[in-house]
Amino acid sequence: MDFAPSERSRDLAARVRAFIDTEIEPAEQVIATDVAERRARGEDPWPAHPLVAELQGKARAQGLWNLFLPAGHEGPYAARFGTDGGTGLSNADYAPVAEEMGRSSLAPLIFNCNAPDTGNMEVLLKYGTPEQQAEWLEPLLDGRIRSAFLMTEPGVASSDATNMESTATIDGDEVVLNGRKWWSTGVGNPDCKVGIFMGVTDPEASRHSRHSMVLVPLDHPGVRIERMLSALGHYDEPIGHGEVTLTDVRLPVTNIIAGPGRAFEIAQGRLGPGRVHHCMRLIGLAERALELACERSTTRTAFGKPIANLGGNRERLAKARIAINQARLLVHHAAWKLDTEGSLGALSEVSEIKAVVPQMACDVIDMAIQLHGGAGMSEDFPLAAAYSGARSLRLADGPDEVHLGVVARILLHPYAEKASRS
Amino acid sequence: MDFAPSERSRDLAARVRAFIDTEIEPAEQVIATDVAERRARGEDPWPAHPLVAELQGKARAQGLWNLFLPAGHEGPYAARFGTDGGTGLSNADYAPVAEEMGRSSLAPLIFNCNAPDTGNMEVLLKYGTPEQQAEWLEPLLDGRIRSAFLMTEPGVASSDATNMESTATIDGDEVVLNGRKWWSTGVGNPDCKVGIFMGVTDPEASRHSRHSMVLVPLDHPGVRIERMLSALGHYDEPIGHGEVTLTDVRLPVTNIIAGPGRAFEIAQGRLGPGRVHHCMRLIGLAERALELACERSTTRTAFGKPIANLGGNRERLAKARIAINQARLLVHHAAWKLDTEGSLGALSEVSEIKAVVPQMACDVIDMAIQLHGGAGMSEDFPLAAAYSGARSLRLADGPDEVHLGVVARILLHPYAEKASRS
Amino acid sequence: MDFAPSERSRDLAARVRAFIDTEIEPAEQVIATDVAERRARGEDPWPAHPLVAELQGKARAQGLWNLFLPAGHEGPYAARFGTDGGTGLSNADYAPVAEEMGRSSLAPLIFNCNAPDTGNMEVLLKYGTPEQQAEWLEPLLDGRIRSAFLMTEPGVASSDATNMESTATIDGDEVVLNGRKWWSTGVGNPDCKVGIFMGVTDPEASRHSRHSMVLVPLDHPGVRIERMLSALGHYDEPIGHGEVTLTDVRLPVTNIIAGPGRAFEIAQGRLGPGRVHHCMRLIGLAERALELACERSTTRTAFGKPIANLGGNRERLAKARIAINQARLLVHHAAWKLDTEGSLGALSEVSEIKAVVPQMACDVIDMAIQLHGGAGMSEDFPLAAAYSGARSLRLADGPDEVHLGVVARILLHPYAEKASRS
Amino acid sequence: MDFAPSERSRDLAARVRAFIDTEIEPAEQVIATDVAERRARGEDPWPAHPLVAELQGKARAQGLWNLFLPAGHEGPYAARFGTDGGTGLSNADYAPVAEEMGRSSLAPLIFNCNAPDTGNMEVLLKYGTPEQQAEWLEPLLDGRIRSAFLMTEPGVASSDATNMESTATIDGDEVVLNGRKWWSTGVGNPDCKVGIFMGVTDPEASRHSRHSMVLVPLDHPGVRIERMLSALGHYDEPIGHGEVTLTDVRLPVTNIIAGPGRAFEIAQGRLGPGRVHHCMRLIGLAERALELACERSTTRTAFGKPIANLGGNRERLAKARIAINQARLLVHHAAWKLDTEGSLGALSEVSEIKAVVPQMACDVIDMAIQLHGGAGMSEDFPLAAAYSGARSLRLADGPDEVHLGVVARILLHPYAEKASRS
Repeated sequence: MDFAPSERSRDLAARVRAFIDTEIEPAEQVIATDVAERRARGEDPWPAHPLVAELQGKARAQGLWNLFLPAGHEGPYAARFGTDGGTGLSNADYAPVAEEMGRSSLAPLIFNCNAPDTGNMEVLLKYGTPEQQAEWLEPLLDGRIRSAFLMTEPGVASSDATNMESTATIDGDEVVLNGRKWWSTGVGNPDCKVGIFMGVTDPEASRHSRHSMVLVPLDHPGVRIERMLSALGHYDEPIGHGEVTLTDVRLPVTNIIAGPGRAFEIAQGRLGPGRVHHCMRLIGLAERALELACERSTTRTAFGKPIANLGGNRERLAKARIAINQARLLVHHAAWKLDTEGSLGALSEVSEIKAVVPQMACDVIDMAIQLHGGAGMSEDFPLAAAYSGARSLRLADGPDEVHLGVVARILLHPYAEKASRS
Repeated sequence: MDFAPSERSRDLAARVRAFIDTEIEPAEQVIATDVAERRARGEDPWPAHPLVAELQGKARAQGLWNLFLPAGHEGPYAARFGTDGGTGLSNADYAPVAEEMGRSSLAPLIFNCNAPDTGNMEVLLKYGTPEQQAEWLEPLLDGRIRSAFLMTEPGVASSDATNMESTATIDGDEVVLNGRKWWSTGVGNPDCKVGIFMGVTDPEASRHSRHSMVLVPLDHPGVRIERMLSALGHYDEPIGHGEVTLTDVRLPVTNIIAGPGRAFEIAQGRLGPGRVHHCMRLIGLAERALELACERSTTRTAFGKPIANLGGNRERLAKARIAINQARLLVHHAAWKLDTEGSLGALSEVSEIKAVVPQMACDVIDMAIQLHGGAGMSEDFPLAAAYSGARSLRLADGPDEVHLGVVARILLHPYAEKASRS
Repeated sequence: MDFAPSERSRDLAARVRAFIDTEIEPAEQVIATDVAERRARGEDPWPAHPLVAELQGKARAQGLWNLFLPAGHEGPYAARFGTDGGTGLSNADYAPVAEEMGRSSLAPLIFNCNAPDTGNMEVLLKYGTPEQQAEWLEPLLDGRIRSAFLMTEPGVASSDATNMESTATIDGDEVVLNGRKWWSTGVGNPDCKVGIFMGVTDPEASRHSRHSMVLVPLDHPGVRIERMLSALGHYDEPIGHGEVTLTDVRLPVTNIIAGPGRAFEIAQGRLGPGRVHHCMRLIGLAERALELACERSTTRTAFGKPIANLGGNRERLAKARIAINQARLLVHHAAWKLDTEGSLGALSEVSEIKAVVPQMACDVIDMAIQLHGGAGMSEDFPLAAAYSGARSLRLADGPDEVHLGVVARILLHPYAEKASRS
Repeated sequence: MDFAPSERSRDLAARVRAFIDTEIEPAEQVIATDVAERRARGEDPWPAHPLVAELQGKARAQGLWNLFLPAGHEGPYAARFGTDGGTGLSNADYAPVAEEMGRSSLAPLIFNCNAPDTGNMEVLLKYGTPEQQAEWLEPLLDGRIRSAFLMTEPGVASSDATNMESTATIDGDEVVLNGRKWWSTGVGNPDCKVGIFMGVTDPEASRHSRHSMVLVPLDHPGVRIERMLSALGHYDEPIGHGEVTLTDVRLPVTNIIAGPGRAFEIAQGRLGPGRVHHCMRLIGLAERALELACERSTTRTAFGKPIANLGGNRERLAKARIAINQARLLVHHAAWKLDTEGSLGALSEVSEIKAVVPQMACDVIDMAIQLHGGAGMSEDFPLAAAYSGARSLRLADGPDEVHLGVVARILLHPYAEKASRS
């Protein structure tokens, strides 16, 4: 048993953290103000801010780029992994790095490690043809374009992915996409050029072989971004979540990833690491909220005492300290399990963290908001946006309850087996 | 013991509810869309929408106007109370009426029962000179103008009101206001013409006799609305919360309410009913969230079942049902206690509801959001805005923790007395 | 709306309270010591203590006897109701009286208001033949004998009463009982002479018409008390819970109550008031725990302060204060609903209190234990026994989860109906 | 980062587990029945059962003996450490072994790893003179005698150890002990021959130098075991907790450990590992409760389904699974921190686990009880005793709240420092 991160992991985490502290945090406030002013002037708040590209360039120059790319990949792009000079990072090694990125809503984008691009790049790496990789993976790895993932639909309960109503109908050499998607993260960004669309190809096939994943250029005339959505009042510029309709979007069948009917198989692999990354980042977000809470509650006084010393505040801070520590360990353990036993061996572990980490982060952030008073609710602190982000992750990539269901199924399986035999 | 509301209360509640269902709910969507579009065009989203005045006229014509005005008032305005034809309502009678208003964020404004106008009108009724009443109370009772309450400050922990740094310095016949206030609800509305400002007049006086309340016309050149604040991402148009600076705002001393140094005494009376009204409305808000949750969870299916029947959802819905019922009873009981024993006799009861009802509402709304999936986070349902409103009330008018402190103080008082004697 | 109890209710509650304070509490300690010593000497701890009969006599002489008997009964025994001189009490009037009894584990027995006798007496009152009433109801009303209710079985999940495996087979003029029951409260008491047994008579009948209730004299040779059970380590002398086997217990068919197959119908009526009574008493128990917590935490010091002032203790005490108040109101409201709309009209309300009041009591008592330190776990304070009692009631008469299910069913019914129509 | 236990740790844990499954669990039931029968006959339930010595012999023969002894000890007894053939175990290595022991209330005694003997042996190892070691440590290491720790007092809040009122007065060559102690674990056992007593020697010394620890033979005529205490109704035979008075117990000053006034220094070291051991064992206890819950809920049915599939049960089971996993990781991490940074470096970590693991265990066991219905409350399952044990540990060795206070202090220290400088 050894809880210390590897030397390389520790080093990367420290460099990422230093970059965030010195470069990204100051930029965040500038960008936020610009977006707010653009909004106030009725201008499009979505164009990427020039500071973003500038910071991306700096990060890349320091080797802090594409660090999400997993160890063990053998393909033609392996050489681009671990741009700090090594190969790709194990999940356990990436965890402390991603945690630092989670402190800032902007940081993942700067390091080219943001969802949904990371998941999309992994799909293309693993399942893309050389042509698909050249067209889309290359520029994504370079950060020249961004991408979206078109899965969730407004018309059905998308927690059950088999409910999906969109279609990807094969017509000769072509595949025709129709449907309405929402919570398509990233489509608000003008650099977002491609989406991975999921739809029903063969409704007669078995439950998990009906759907296909299709690469869809977002400038196709049949693709329409209907509106950008707010989540608890936040639009999350410059990434954002959109509602998108696809009407008779005709594409070559070669745009299908890995062939028709394989969407569930791909999604399974795609969402696993994504869930782990989200949880890693939420640890950092919660940690930052706790830091703010500690700072505020020791520097403001009421009734003659620092706020920290009033009522149950110290207990709440201590419980937050413990909750984050427990959650971090659970995330690290899940990452290690993924590394040592693969996706199938870590099925319960991944659902365990997805079921508790977002809720933990919500609780810690909410406590921090309460200690900040009205300021915590306002845009003056990153807490309101952090809450919105953490709260969204209790739904995104499967609601808490679905993940608890997975954990229960795996837990009870041997008992149910035994009971059915007797 | 009789839990049935009075005939008059039941009748008013039913009429208010019908008005909301048929008139206000349809208007809400229209107004929300208009505000969003104005925002999108970079126009000022704050001007009052013409539908508001129209609905106010209808409500007033039906006697559904100023129903918050309390029974037992003897002054010259008593004749305008109970515009349904009777006298003012008791708190217990008002509770079911206010609950219905709480279902909609717009409704209180339509019935001229919205904070902070209600509290300000009560202050003017109780403490205003005839001149003050003629100038400000008259138009407020008519809904011709709106008002603000300038108390909370960004620079200090305002949960302890004695922290306040703004000043109301007396200089001969004049009082000079200086300071920075925020979370001044209502200042975004162009009809908002007057504020009640609280500031230090005599820093040498005893702790609760230092501050004065002063009527300040918001068009005074020294008053500047610095910005509108968002709360968890919501600006709460058309009311809104602002940050306001007052710089050498010189006013006649006759603008001081009830004389210098009496602000705490007035605030005590002002905030009591306000807290109760907030809690009454939150019951209605939570009830509406539960209705939405029930509807959504019985009409959407996942994994072959209505969502309501998955996992622990039925238990969560049942717990929400019970939590609302318990909270409603606690609010009704507090209202009855206020009616029968007055503010001092209901001190613990008012803090009890303020300490638990907003949290209860947050919990119920959060559960409803979760059952709605992504839709619950979006602007398509009133849940995100409801959450923001309920969450704000865990801070506004005293954070939960301060109210728990009051409850504990009253609970422990006899024991501490006894312990100190032995 | 009027939250004040009636004059009669207030008077009875005050007299019951005074009797408990002056007579019962001192006796409790004497009896507890005697039981402990008997146990220590290896003697039977179950014989009723002479103090019990003495106190019962005093209580009866003061009219504090059988107060549980419900208003509105018209039968031959109605004259014995309301032994304070009036008729039976409404549920709303009984609530504050029962609450006081709940402060002491012994008090209900002293006032002849203890479970399961109360429920059994109500069954006999409502469904008993004159012969059954003469034989069993008379002496129960007089407190000359006690009774048991034989329903729960060790072999099946008894939360689903249709699981029951015991049989009450009709054989000509006789009914033959077989089965194993447990948690049969009261059988440890030597005065316990009769049980109401529930078993399957016709396995082919419809689900709720299979079972019968049969009066079984406990001295029948086929009845065997196998052992007394502890609940969280407590035997709850002098009442106690037993495991009982019935082997070919042959009785006249006239021992069946209301005729074969009517057990569920009777149980429904029997358990309703029982549940409400339990909840009323738990309010008193929680209130007493809170009093002890306040007393202890203001009289002991640690780290230089009264314990009450350490960490989050004041908040915990305040939350307990609020939780009890909310629970009491919910119980009172359910009682009032039972009075005004009958059992069917109060179905949700009764399940609501049963689902939350025992848990609330557990939480308050647990908090009180924690504030007492080790003493709270010991027999020196009534808290450990109180916890055991409250915890048992999260299972007895239907586990929390079953009651939450009832609440959800009633809540969702109209929505499910509407959904099924569309 | 490596979450896998060492080979040796895994091997020992497996052997301990096998021993428990095959030898101890069957014996537990036999012993429990014997104790119950002795009690029922009024005989002393406390004499050690012959099976205990027999099992101890077997365990020792297999090298499963004194495994708690820490790595790194250099003294004359080091050779007896790690009786599996190696040296003492690191905390991280001991954790999985202790977890297995925690599954059974009897197991720690069988492996000579039970509290308070382990802590007492560590004190003697570290601070004992060769004479003290020969007299008391030798037979303790052999399991020939048992020991007690006399610290907590009934008269004061012992969460603040400086409250202690007992005295250890030096009178020439002698030390005279007076005082009343309780929750002295182990004194009920007839093999318990020695206690470590803590009392005030010099009331004028600085706060943490007033107290001494003194070895007191329990057969001294001035030592009187007043009674055995129950904790939530459980006496925890064959160990048990007693109330003990010491009246003018005169002993040679050589019985003082490490010299007068050093009690706090010793206690600090003594309680640290004890707290970690308790937490390690609670993980195993919670795990066993979860296993029982899974088994029961898949083999009993109600309303046509296995209980596991009703309402929120699967979610509760999943949450228990996650809670145990998080707690285990926190315990392992604290053990590793102790190993790598010593007691001072792991101060927060040890308090973190002590603050959350007992509560977690209570919650899991309570859930398991609820799924078992009445059976869970009874003596037929180990759950009621497990609950009592886990609940006691929310108080023993410092209540949760005190440990949260330590965590908060360490967390806030740098912020408070910074705040005080500005």
